[in-house]
Amino acid sequence: MILATADEVRHLAYAIDTFYFLICGALVMWMAAGFAMLEAGLVRAKNTTEILTKNVALYAIACTMYLICGYYIMYSSDAGGIFPSLGGLIGDENSVADVLSGDEDAPYYSARSDYFFQVVFVATCMSIVSGAVAERMKLWAFLAFAVVMTGFIYPVSGYWTWGGGFLSEAGFSDFAGSGIVHMAGAAAALAGVLVLGARKGKYGKDGQINAIPGANMPLATLGTFILWLGWFGFNGGSELKMSDVDSANNVAQVFVNTNAAAAGGVIAALIFARLWFKKADLTMALNGALAGLVAITAEPLAPSAPGAALIGAVGGLIVVFSIITLDKLKIDDPVGAISVHGVVGIWGLLAVPLTNEDATFGAQILGIVSIFAWVFIASLIVWVILKAVMGIRVTEEEEYEGVDIAECGMEAYPEFATTRK
Amino acid sequence: MILATADEVRHLAYAIDTFYFLICGALVMWMAAGFAMLEAGLVRAKNTTEILTKNVALYAIACTMYLICGYYIMYSSDAGGIFPSLGGLIGDENSVADVLSGDEDAPYYSARSDYFFQVVFVATCMSIVSGAVAERMKLWAFLAFAVVMTGFIYPVSGYWTWGGGFLSEAGFSDFAGSGIVHMAGAAAALAGVLVLGARKGKYGKDGQINAIPGANMPLATLGTFILWLGWFGFNGGSELKMSDVDSANNVAQVFVNTNAAAAGGVIAALIFARLWFKKADLTMALNGALAGLVAITAEPLAPSAPGAALIGAVGGLIVVFSIITLDKLKIDDPVGAISVHGVVGIWGLLAVPLTNEDATFGAQILGIVSIFAWVFIASLIVWVILKAVMGIRVTEEEEYEGVDIAECGMEAYPEFATTRK
Amino acid sequence: MILATADEVRHLAYAIDTFYFLICGALVMWMAAGFAMLEAGLVRAKNTTEILTKNVALYAIACTMYLICGYYIMYSSDAGGIFPSLGGLIGDENSVADVLSGDEDAPYYSARSDYFFQVVFVATCMSIVSGAVAERMKLWAFLAFAVVMTGFIYPVSGYWTWGGGFLSEAGFSDFAGSGIVHMAGAAAALAGVLVLGARKGKYGKDGQINAIPGANMPLATLGTFILWLGWFGFNGGSELKMSDVDSANNVAQVFVNTNAAAAGGVIAALIFARLWFKKADLTMALNGALAGLVAITAEPLAPSAPGAALIGAVGGLIVVFSIITLDKLKIDDPVGAISVHGVVGIWGLLAVPLTNEDATFGAQILGIVSIFAWVFIASLIVWVILKAVMGIRVTEEEEYEGVDIAECGMEAYPEFATTRK
Repeated sequence: MILATADEVRHLAYAIDTFYFLICGALVMWMAAGFAMLEAGLVRAKNTTEILTKNVALYAIACTMYLICGYYIMYSSDAGGIFPSLGGLIGDENSVADVLSGDEDAPYYSARSDYFFQVVFVATCMSIVSGAVAERMKLWAFLAFAVVMTGFIYPVSGYWTWGGGFLSEAGFSDFAGSGIVHMAGAAAALAGVLVLGARKGKYGKDGQINAIPGANMPLATLGTFILWLGWFGFNGGSELKMSDVDSANNVAQVFVNTNAAAAGGVIAALIFARLWFKKADLTMALNGALAGLVAITAEPLAPSAPGAALIGAVGGLIVVFSIITLDKLKIDDPVGAISVHGVVGIWGLLAVPLTNEDATFGAQILGIVSIFAWVFIASLIVWVILKAVMGIRVTEEEEYEGVDIAECGMEAYPEFATTRK
Repeated sequence: MILATADEVRHLAYAIDTFYFLICGALVMWMAAGFAMLEAGLVRAKNTTEILTKNVALYAIACTMYLICGYYIMYSSDAGGIFPSLGGLIGDENSVADVLSGDEDAPYYSARSDYFFQVVFVATCMSIVSGAVAERMKLWAFLAFAVVMTGFIYPVSGYWTWGGGFLSEAGFSDFAGSGIVHMAGAAAALAGVLVLGARKGKYGKDGQINAIPGANMPLATLGTFILWLGWFGFNGGSELKMSDVDSANNVAQVFVNTNAAAAGGVIAALIFARLWFKKADLTMALNGALAGLVAITAEPLAPSAPGAALIGAVGGLIVVFSIITLDKLKIDDPVGAISVHGVVGIWGLLAVPLTNEDATFGAQILGIVSIFAWVFIASLIVWVILKAVMGIRVTEEEEYEGVDIAECGMEAYPEFATTRK
Repeated sequence: MILATADEVRHLAYAIDTFYFLICGALVMWMAAGFAMLEAGLVRAKNTTEILTKNVALYAIACTMYLICGYYIMYSSDAGGIFPSLGGLIGDENSVADVLSGDEDAPYYSARSDYFFQVVFVATCMSIVSGAVAERMKLWAFLAFAVVMTGFIYPVSGYWTWGGGFLSEAGFSDFAGSGIVHMAGAAAALAGVLVLGARKGKYGKDGQINAIPGANMPLATLGTFILWLGWFGFNGGSELKMSDVDSANNVAQVFVNTNAAAAGGVIAALIFARLWFKKADLTMALNGALAGLVAITAEPLAPSAPGAALIGAVGGLIVVFSIITLDKLKIDDPVGAISVHGVVGIWGLLAVPLTNEDATFGAQILGIVSIFAWVFIASLIVWVILKAVMGIRVTEEEEYEGVDIAECGMEAYPEFATTRK
């Protein structure tokens, strides 16, 4: 009988963990389509082509900027620091000799698969911004912001935790990025919305809030389902290992909890909206699903499945409250991105110590404040500079006519007669 | 040269089988989006938001109820029985020691991954119901039914076969659930449709049948493609093992046969519809694909690929016949779910003994009758109770105006002018 | 301590490589949905049901014809030849004994998984054709062509390289099929377009070119994202092995490069379109993504990630030029398929020797000329015969009214009022 060598087993383990990373990364890439459909469904018909263009372009920019410098900044810097090293490109692939060395810290999955998994995260973060500033921001100003956000702002705060910076040393715990990805995107969005102002007609002179319904509910629903599916890769891949019993069990727990939290978010938001608005509000149900997903992202492993459902349900309640409250504050976010990813992201981070005894509220608050402050202030500066240099808001006439014609030269639904401007 | 231990190999095998389960489960979860898009495409614009809300909410309810009690009922009951044990939650994860014990019945994949794979099946079953009762059922009555169906009715008959109950002992053979999932969903749908009655205007006074075309064919097509993709997980994962040569070969055969059967269903339905209606009827082609998939689900492993194509093609013929026949019987099923999942599901079950010599027609018929009778009668009772307690049908005026405004307070396409009420 | 046997490791490796093939194949199958959505979004509303029907049916035909004879022709023929052997079906599965034999050429993944991976490629090739001939071709003539294309024309030239025929021996290098799949599809499409002629009203009497915008931009965008996702399977699976460190690293590199090339294509096309048309043209951004993907498909492994981005960016420039040029030549391709898959496919093939030193320009040109000539001429003959026998173009009145009613008897959006005929 021929026996197997330890090296043969290492080859297989490396293949499993690399394949797992790549598939999870592909699922996260798919979230780009989810954001595009969600946002295209929630804006008016006259602004649909432009939001689609933004979503395709921001994904391309995120992938390119992260390749040029973002990945280096985030993952090649000194341990424990605040200021990352600057540099570019994504380094070398692991050699077979290194993998088989038997060292304790020998690489156990492809460095390229790690890059692929990380690059789709930055695109997710950037996707959050596009919805909040929809229907009135200039396309090219947005894309210019995307260059800075994905090449620099996100990588810096990403480095603080995942790249081994000071938040990592301080014990800040954010499994898959409720804060690092979602709240960061929301902070950039909030800064943009504040500089940009509300859409014309959203808030009346007498303080009334006018609903501006999205043009295409099936698209918004499709986008939510896509995001739900993609989130299995987002959270599931963040275990970072699959090839032993404990890791495999953990990944499975993450899948179960991610799903349970989203389900809890839907049910809570739907019931709450029914009580509040007297209707089964679809958009609130969709935001409830996303809120459940954001809430569980900070710690999808430690809770039991019913615990995860509860964390998601609280997220579903918070998101409805938050959307109502932001509207009262005249912070105009057409798709609810700041509430879903920001406010609920904070809830997710604060919930970590409830189930994970290695986490502390102090470290969680430090992380929330640090990341929010950095991304919000840095983004604010960039938005203000862009406003001064090229302008960030379309003209009143363009907003009235719709940005599709002004920016993209084509309507999204050129043949469908519309009942309103 | 360092040699590998048997435990190292067990770790890897466990990782492979767990990952395979999770990915197949994620594909089945994706079918929820498929049903949502299919149904949203096949109803009228005025009922679209409500069907989307139902689909999101039923998925959330299914996941929550199966977590609370469904999984326990289905998989924790005594061998060979009819009446399951009652109880709740999903049990413990496997310990590393158990996995590495070397026992013949040692667990070889994560218990959580098994739960994840099973929970998305119950959602599939429930999704079948929503299409058949579309355009006239009250939203909250439907969701109340979903609670009972996913938490109790489905788990009981699921226990009979997959949980080791009496059908399993009787030799009933249903690989991935033509009967346990699809026919069960159709039986619940049929009971609902009978209690509910047809849509206003569907059947004229003089016996004529009025076509009520769906509002959005691209959505219906997208939904079908999503279901087709998800079905690779549905059938492929039902082999339950991937990590040896025989299992891997079997999974590959299942993928090939699933695809071939769907293709056969399309071609047969398209040609038959061309001959019957003189047109290349897209909705029949889509139903043909789904019929092929349902037909092969009871036994996607034993047939050769051409055999699978043939089984699917017969399914494609049956579904067109069945849709025409149900309309003549004034059983109003807007999306054809009863035909696709029920009638063709029975065909799939009866076809098992043609290629799998371990199956018998007697056991197949016993299974069909048992599952259908249980789900149909139990559902009928629930529907009748719901009708008495809260009513299950919207008012005539609400049906005329569309359930979107009445139930959800928002239109699916608020800007698109429509050419009819 | 119990040691592991070499056979146990072989079982696991076989499982990994088979699973990898099946998942990549499922991603490629998903591209069928991508083409369907892309094309449905880019045609007018009145021709949408028919293009959807074509896409579903061509996928079914491709799977069936490749099962009946295509796979045999492509992979069971003599080494080094031009004329393949004729025959049918897909052969036997590997036995466990063969897999464990220890022979150097022992099979290391399921033969059925190989078939599954290959069958979805031929569907991709055929999908390319449907877009180019949209809005004026008879449905059944198209489907008749699909039978010949997928059962014979594609398998013959596929055999030349991937089946071990003369191009393989000549050193022609086409990793995942820029030429074998994409350019081949475009060659068949070009032949069809030339026989068919342009759509009524596309080209005016005085040489002006009239834009005919697509009816549904969200669908076109969704289709592009689906294709982008599916392409990870298309290129990633074409490494053909996953289960050792080198192979896993290669697959990861392919994922990274595929993504980088698409991103490069978007950015280049968007900027170029902005300069040329003064607008951020969404359809050009989408075509840029697809062009980047096609361009990298011939060699997604050898380039570095920035190199891949550059190859994709050049593809993005070429596709905009090509679309403008084909319109000047009055070659009417409603979705730009000939430019995306044909012209950029040639670029991809010619770029191989830039990064892969085993490739030569001579062999690449031989491959381009051979495949293009074969597919174009064979297709031209089939189109001409179909034109003589059954006609390939709908009547002027049918074209004016839309092919949906004429061919399928149903509108895609029956309730949405349209602003033009």
